[in-house]
Amino acid sequence: MRVITTIKEMQELILQQKSQGKTVGFVPTMGFLHEGHLTLLNRARQENDIVVLSIFVNPLQFGPKEDYAEYPRDFERDRALAESEMVDFLFYPSVEEMYPTDLSVRVTVQERTDVLCGSSRPGHFDGVATVITKFFNIIMPTRAYFGKKDAQQVAVIEGLISDFNIPVNLVAVDIVRENDGLAKSSRNVNLLPNERKEAPVLYQSLQVAAGAIDEGERDPNKLIHLIREEIGKESSGVIDYVQIYSYPQLKPLEKLEGTIIIALAVKFTKVRLIDNFITKID
Amino acid sequence: MRVITTIKEMQELILQQKSQGKTVGFVPTMGFLHEGHLTLLNRARQENDIVVLSIFVNPLQFGPKEDYAEYPRDFERDRALAESEMVDFLFYPSVEEMYPTDLSVRVTVQERTDVLCGSSRPGHFDGVATVITKFFNIIMPTRAYFGKKDAQQVAVIEGLISDFNIPVNLVAVDIVRENDGLAKSSRNVNLLPNERKEAPVLYQSLQVAAGAIDEGERDPNKLIHLIREEIGKESSGVIDYVQIYSYPQLKPLEKLEGTIIIALAVKFTKVRLIDNFITKID
Repeated sequence: MRVITTIKEMQELILQQKSQGKTVGFVPTMGFLHEGHLTLLNRARQENDIVVLSIFVNPLQFGPKEDYAEYPRDFERDRALAESEMVDFLFYPSVEEMYPTDLSVRVTVQERTDVLCGSSRPGHFDGVATVITKFFNIIMPTRAYFGKKDAQQVAVIEGLISDFNIPVNLVAVDIVRENDGLAKSSRNVNLLPNERKEAPVLYQSLQVAAGAIDEGERDPNKLIHLIREEIGKESSGVIDYVQIYSYPQLKPLEKLEGTIIIALAVKFTKVRLIDNFITKID
Repeated sequence: MRVITTIKEMQELILQQKSQGKTVGFVPTMGFLHEGHLTLLNRARQENDIVVLSIFVNPLQFGPKEDYAEYPRDFERDRALAESEMVDFLFYPSVEEMYPTDLSVRVTVQERTDVLCGSSRPGHFDGVATVITKFFNIIMPTRAYFGKKDAQQVAVIEGLISDFNIPVNLVAVDIVRENDGLAKSSRNVNLLPNERKEAPVLYQSLQVAAGAIDEGERDPNKLIHLIREEIGKESSGVIDYVQIYSYPQLKPLEKLEGTIIIALAVKFTKVRLIDNFITKID
């Protein structure tokens, strides 16, 4: 595995690989890798000749009150994990390398942002879309891998790729779960012991909604009510939101049709958990 | 020459050419080709294996009060000219093909826009940068050709390429002039006969400024004064602006240093002419 820190070298290496007809799988991350990232790397390894992992804590996507400085970093651990996942190139640029001057242009996301987690993070997805645009131009991937856990991010990237005609295939990878259904997250360790026992209720409530859809329920409000009831019954967590939208457009629906997302966020003592369920209504 | 109207076919053809190691020269236009465009095509033909010309009147870069509907179009004439310039692919998409739905993302230009012609065209360069981002992803050019006549556009595209790390070489081609120095433009035919005689004063005034710089003048205000005096002496045209900035940053200068642009616009009865001079101060 080679660690690359400059854009120029990364671009040259990729052009060299692509001129030999090699396919390139790309997994963008902010580092501090967890099992979700490793699943993406594993999938990229299976499907491409070359695997590129980027580690870059992108200041552009953090709000002024958010935790950019405190965001966890452990490059040596990440490097070892990347090596064990047989990554070919670990792209690890500095902030100065990525943003040497004030940007004269940036990507503005006009849709899909004012719902779910995005409504409380103005500008966040502009920062994500801008850095991903840069990465796509540097890595020129055949396929780019994102986890469905952050379904709104996937929706924004899908819009970016499709509206800008970026020649890359977006691979959205299913949520990895514990045996009891809890979506894996590095934040789960911050659950108190009783909260950890309750936390699978997020997944269970989505399963209840899925069952109701199977039985013909098409009213989003009734499904939201079902989910809220299920969570209230089983957990001390406080519901932040339960929302249902078209996917990936993230537009409100009067009646379920097409591809939809049910997404929810629940606050526990020290951590807020999210989960979602995406399905196509026949 | 092949005329291509869909993004998918254009992208596939280019990928096929690039997989054979071919270089691609790209000339983006809004059609109604004139000698300036032909100069770009000629240069692209000399320097690349494949030449792609796009013709697309981009609604996104026209303001609500601007002349999108009236913009001149003559596809059959353009096609014949492209053929005679030995263009390989003429990309001619419809508005529906380029913008099938409302864009969920767009490029916002944050610098280099509030001076020169940009100050009276809010949003214009966002539209330019967005469509050029799409074209770069569709055509994947080795080199893209723009005329220095619209120096502000070149500056914005330079920022787009550099800030987004787009793997393309920008080729800025010198202004083509009539024998008397008047910059060529399809708009010159709208000059009244006496105005046509006066019009070379734009170029002459820039030459006067260049002479003063050679003799050591470094004060932008003195140079602007010289130019205004020269134009006022020789012409009935009304000066719209005479401005001097760093280039391509387009930032004001107290003293000339580095690469600079002197740009001007003069209004005649039925037409406004622009011209500019870019030079590196030793």
